[in-house]
This record gives sequence, structure tokens and C-alpha cells, in this order.
Amino acid sequence: MQASPLKIGLLGLGTVGSGVVQILQANKTAIGIKLGRDLEITKALVRNPQLPRQVNYDSIRLTTDAAEIIGDPEIDIIVEVMGGIEPARSYMLEALQCGKHVVTANKDLLALHGRELLDTATAAGKDLLFEASVAGGIPIIAALKQSLAGNQIKQLAGIINGTTNYILTAMAEQGREYADVLKEAQELGYAEADPSSDVDGLDAARKLAILASIAFGSAVTLNDVYTEGISRISKTDLEYARELDYTIKLLALANESEERVEVRVHPAFLPNSHPLAAVKGVFNAVYVVGDAVGETMFYGRGAGSLPTGSAVVADLMQVVRNMKTGANGNLNCTCYRRLEIKPVEEFKSAYYVRLQVKDEPRVLASLAAMFAEAGISFASIIQKPKPDEAAELVLVSHPCQEGQMQQAVENLKVYAKVLNICNIIRVEGGQ
Amino acid sequence: MQASPLKIGLLGLGTVGSGVVQILQANKTAIGIKLGRDLEITKALVRNPQLPRQVNYDSIRLTTDAAEIIGDPEIDIIVEVMGGIEPARSYMLEALQCGKHVVTANKDLLALHGRELLDTATAAGKDLLFEASVAGGIPIIAALKQSLAGNQIKQLAGIINGTTNYILTAMAEQGREYADVLKEAQELGYAEADPSSDVDGLDAARKLAILASIAFGSAVTLNDVYTEGISRISKTDLEYARELDYTIKLLALANESEERVEVRVHPAFLPNSHPLAAVKGVFNAVYVVGDAVGETMFYGRGAGSLPTGSAVVADLMQVVRNMKTGANGNLNCTCYRRLEIKPVEEFKSAYYVRLQVKDEPRVLASLAAMFAEAGISFASIIQKPKPDEAAELVLVSHPCQEGQMQQAVENLKVYAKVLNICNIIRVEGGQ
Repeated sequence: MQASPLKIGLLGLGTVGSGVVQILQANKTAIGIKLGRDLEITKALVRNPQLPRQVNYDSIRLTTDAAEIIGDPEIDIIVEVMGGIEPARSYMLEALQCGKHVVTANKDLLALHGRELLDTATAAGKDLLFEASVAGGIPIIAALKQSLAGNQIKQLAGIINGTTNYILTAMAEQGREYADVLKEAQELGYAEADPSSDVDGLDAARKLAILASIAFGSAVTLNDVYTEGISRISKTDLEYARELDYTIKLLALANESEERVEVRVHPAFLPNSHPLAAVKGVFNAVYVVGDAVGETMFYGRGAGSLPTGSAVVADLMQVVRNMKTGANGNLNCTCYRRLEIKPVEEFKSAYYVRLQVKDEPRVLASLAAMFAEAGISFASIIQKPKPDEAAELVLVSHPCQEGQMQQAVENLKVYAKVLNICNIIRVEGGQ
Repeated sequence: MQASPLKIGLLGLGTVGSGVVQILQANKTAIGIKLGRDLEITKALVRNPQLPRQVNYDSIRLTTDAAEIIGDPEIDIIVEVMGGIEPARSYMLEALQCGKHVVTANKDLLALHGRELLDTATAAGKDLLFEASVAGGIPIIAALKQSLAGNQIKQLAGIINGTTNYILTAMAEQGREYADVLKEAQELGYAEADPSSDVDGLDAARKLAILASIAFGSAVTLNDVYTEGISRISKTDLEYARELDYTIKLLALANESEERVEVRVHPAFLPNSHPLAAVKGVFNAVYVVGDAVGETMFYGRGAGSLPTGSAVVADLMQVVRNMKTGANGNLNCTCYRRLEIKPVEEFKSAYYVRLQVKDEPRVLASLAAMFAEAGISFASIIQKPKPDEAAELVLVSHPCQEGQMQQAVENLKVYAKVLNICNIIRVEGGQ
């Protein structure tokens, strides 16, 4: 005899919540057979029960009272897809303490309060699973927690924000400026009315904090991540990138060496031969190098109702499998050590430097000397004449420390032949 | 107090076995902390204990007697990395019946006898895990079994044989012929002295049988997979592919529709815009489309000591986690239905057809009529003059059924103006 359906309560019935409902409806039979038990969403917390919705929720009781769901003894699993810090945090803590398993897509919350939530879950012997919090349907958290667990992770590089990747791809392919493409992305719904969380790199930084914590087994929070956005990238930079056989991406980078974790999100030149360079539009990908596995990459849709819903449903199925064998709560937090965060001055990168200088003899020689003084040498140089006795100079350096580049920039600022420091962008993904 | 080390017996200490030993030595501390228990390889089955080996095996007792390992009551987990059908099959069955968990990299065995082995494991309540059997370190089996389990898988396309991908990449990039590159691959150790299992597509077919069984929840064996190799691909075909903005890959393809599974391995034209087209050299990748998650791709090294060892170690760690909670044996076989295999005549593809014809008026018109009679029309045509009054004609068709193309080819064979049917290659990855 088959066990009775397992009851699920949804906190939130927006984009992701609707995706979860749709998937559980569409693939109900196969999921039921695979688990030996049906999954049934019985209640959903919403702001306004009268709103028209895109999914069929006939069998789901909508409520504006969270206690009606969290306090329901018939509900075994809470799916938190409302987003934001509060009241999501309190609801999740309460649900865990009430003996419910929690599946969440909430990166904001995990990037700040992950440790507290995971510890609460483990203490309660309940699952707190969060595959959907990073890179939508791409199973990168399962990969890091389990499939690559025998590796020492050397490097993690991700394109984990679809909005900025859409903007940079369109700028590169259509030769358009940032503001123009951003406006279009907002009209198409790929960027929000207030796009700052995406374009300033915060969204990617939150996801990177979660990924780095798992990859290196040491808690990293949003505040640890050095973050720059893409708003200063211009059409001209993308043209030079193409000329030099590079692509510009908003990269989320993490690595560990000498017991220190380096975590940063910023635009970067990436060689066209790098696996991440081919990741276009709203797609996401995470490139992971392990000491045993070598280079790997995980690619797919990083957002959206159904892709993110796919990750939530996978976690729900895992909770049910764990319930069958009493294995819940055993793979919540995978942190097992406490590493330092590397300070920004010690980051090491190559750099693309674009300057407008006076078109006079010996300017290049003086500039080269100025960089050499800071210990920086160059791999490529492009010089192009501009109107009004100016020249545009593009320099691509060999790798140096962030501190060295900061020193060189201080020198550039007071050198009268430099008319404008147009842009400085890190170059990553080299050998 | 920490539990005593968990004891592992290796069957085989070749390429993969050595990788497992190396990883467990290099990452011993971290793995021990993550699991709360150390892993220790105590014995290894070898053909010749006197042979020099690349790994330090001081603490491992080498033996030529399998019973000394399988019958050792102190050993909890058997790692089968000897390969081949027998005696590997008997050893694994015996080990499972003796109450040991088994981790294997043996695709040959699983593609033929997977069902028997998995059923034996489940009946014994033991784990039989096999991530390492497909695509080396890429965690594609975990992805299909767990992370994408809420999806109905629509399509699976893989580059899952490194040898053939190395050969095709070198042919394309260096403009060389098949035999020439194969010889070089053999010298470099990328191809075996007898390369037939790789170049004839058998190795990829075995892996596809395993992947398709999991993706569609229905047992597929090697004998179900339609298989063609790459030996008939010439430099000229690769040149035309480039001209048409395609790449030629040995593709492993599977899809399901109307309760039937289609499984095939053959060379194929793939648009350069397809995510798999950028997978070069010995790298592998598996592209999976699910109804919820959409397009995803998993990329990495598909073979080699450490990458394959990485997958074995991940499975070992999973066995240990399962042992802690008594969850062993719960995710061995994921087949839950019995689907038919689609016959080859009903496969649907577009085709690249390269012909040598007499360079005379109206030949093209006659050919077009001949194909039209079989219901086939064309998307692209290239005609080039050749010496001796011949012309080379390349036709790329719209999608049609395999049976239609077979009928057209019969007609071509008896048409006097066709001097030679140089090659016919399927075109995949279109919309």
C-alpha cells in the first residue's frame, strides 16, 4: 500500500513558487513513482489571495497568515520562495524548530545568515536544502557538496547573474552602449526597474558567498566579497576586447591558497578560448577546477520560474528520500574549517588599461617607465590616434598585485600627459 | 571519539585504481573530517604484484587472489576498477552477496548486465554506485538521478568519448586526415593499439546505454544502441562543415517520445552555435534538456586516472554517508518503467550528402527530383568543379526519416550521372 501524500506548504507564490506548482502538476505521476509517495502542496502564503495567477491552484489553500502554514501539523516540508531577509528568516527558523524540513531559493538570506539557519536545521535534525539559491536549475551545489567532495577545489569562476550577462552579450554582439541595452533589458523583463542589485554585482556576490562556503568548507558571507558592477563598461572596451580576442564578462571568482579564501565579483576580460567565454545571454555557468577532477563546467539557465523550480523540486525529492531512511539533517552545513579572507590589495590579476594621452613623442616611454616602477610590465599595447592631438592607448599587463596597480594609477593621475584614465578592467582566465 | 577507519578493497590497481589511491592519500585529512571517518585502502587485487607502480602502496596489501579481498570480513566497500565483463561481474555479485557495498567504473559491464547487478545490490540492501562509469569526473549520473529528477528529460546529447573527439578536433584544426591523426593519438596514448572500441563508437554506445537508462527510467542496454564510428570522416567533410558553419562530432543521442526511447551514436554535423560544438580535444560534455530546467550542459575530463578517480571517491563518500544513516541501497536502480526502443528506420535527422557527379547540365535538377520523390528537400547546396568533367556536390537536407534517406540512396546508386556517393552524415542540433 502506498503511503499517503506528503504535504508541502509554500511561502510565496510568485515566479519560483508558480514554477514549483507547475512542475509538481506536470510530472506528478513520475515523481510519485520515483519516490513511492505523492507530493501535494496544500497551502501557500500570499500577499493578496485575490490576485489573478498564472498557475492552477484549485487544490491549494491561499492564506495571508504564515502561522496557518508553519503551525499546520500535517505539513512536513516548507518551501520558502518569498525572498528577502525578514520575515523569511523568522519563518524559516520557526518552521525548523516546529520540526519541518525547509527547501529554499533565498540567496539573500543564505549569503548573510546561512550559518545560523543551517545550524538550526542540523540541531533540529531537519533538512535545509538550497540548490535553487544559486544558478537556477544548474545543480552546482550538489556537485560541490557531493560529486566533487573528494577534491581540493583550486578555483571557482562563475557567470552567475543572467541580467548582466544579457547586457554584456547584447553590447558585444550589437555594438551598443550600456544604458541603451539596460533600458531594453528592463522593457523585456530581464532587468528590474531598480537594476542595482544585478548591475552592481551584489546578486552575483551573494551567490558567490554561498558557493565559496561550500567549495572551501569555510563560511563566507556577502560582506567578505569584493564587488564591482558593470556600469562602467563601454562599447569601446568591448571593441578592444574583441580586437584582443577576449570577451568581457561579470565574473564571480573564488580560490583558496595558504588557508585564505579570495572572493570577488567584477567585470573581467576572459580569453575567447575559455569555456566561460561562450556563455551568452541569460545563461549561467560555473567553472570549477579541482585537484583531481581538473577543469569542469556546469551550464544552464540561471533564473526563471521553471529552471529554478526544477532545483526546488530536486531538493523536495531529496528530503523525501532522506525521510524514508531517516537521513535528514546530515548534509546541511558542509563547513568544517575557518579560513581567513584575503585582502583586496593582495589580489593578483592582469589588467587592461585604457588611457587617453597627448599624442607626443616619448609619452609611451614615460608611461612604461611609470608602470615599471610599480613592477608592472605589459603583454600587449594598442595605440590609436584620436582627434585633437590625443591618442588612445590600450595596455594589457602581465599579472601583478592589486596594490601595484593602485600605485601605478596614483602616478598616472598626476602625469600631465595623461588626459583621461578611461577604464581599468582585470584580465582573468590566463594560464 | 572518532570511529575506526573504514576499510576498502580495490579490484584493480591500473590507471583508475592508482588515481583513487592518489586522491585518498592527497586529500586524506579533509575527506576524513568531512565524513567523520577515515577511509583506508587495505588490499588490492593485481595481476602481478612485482610490477613497478606509479603510486605509493606501502600500506596496501597486493594480492592475486580475489577471495582474499571479497572474503575479508573487515572490508566494507569493494572498488571494482579492473574492467571487462568476467571475472568482474562474478566478483561484484559475490561482493554484494557477501554484504559489501560496491563502487565501480565498469561501463562495459553495466551497459550489458546493469539490471542484474543493481537488482542484486538492492536485494542485499547495499550500494552499487557507478558515477565513474560515464564521462570520468563529470557528475552526470548524480545529476540525472537526483538533481534533474523532477524533470521529464526531453533530450540528451553527449560527447562522451575523448579519443574520437581528440581525433576529430585535430583533423578539423590541423586539416589532417583520419589515419594520420589516429596514428599520432596512438603514439600519445590517447588511442589504444586496437582503437576499434573507441573509433567504432562502441565505448560511447555503452555510456549512452547507461545514461539513457537513468534519464528515461527504463533499462537500455548496449545492444539497443544504433552505432556508427568516425573512420569514414575525411578532411574534406570537415572542410565543408567549416564552410557551412558546423563542426563534426561523434554524438551520443537519446530522446524519448510516445513511450519509445531513441538511442544512437554516430558522427554528426553540429551547428557551431551549439554548446557542444565548443567541446574540444579529450574533453567530454553531456547536454541535457529537461521540461522544467531547459538546456543544461555538464563539461569536463571524461577519462584519466585522477578525473575518473574523483568520481570513484565521490561515490565512496556517498556510501559512507549512507552507512551513517542506514540509507544504503536506496538509489541503485532508478528504472521505473519499460519503454520500447525506436527502430532505426524511424529516426529523424537532417543530412549532409556529398556526391561526385558528372559535370553536365540538368544533373542537379534530376538529383533534386530524385530526392523530392523520397520526400526530401534541401536547405543548402554547394557545387564545386573537379578535374575530369566531374563536379562535387554537397547537399544539406531538411529533416527527414532515415527510411526516406535510405530510399533516396538506393535511387542514387543506380543513377549513371552519380560517380560516387562520397559520404552521408547526419545533421543534428537544429531547432
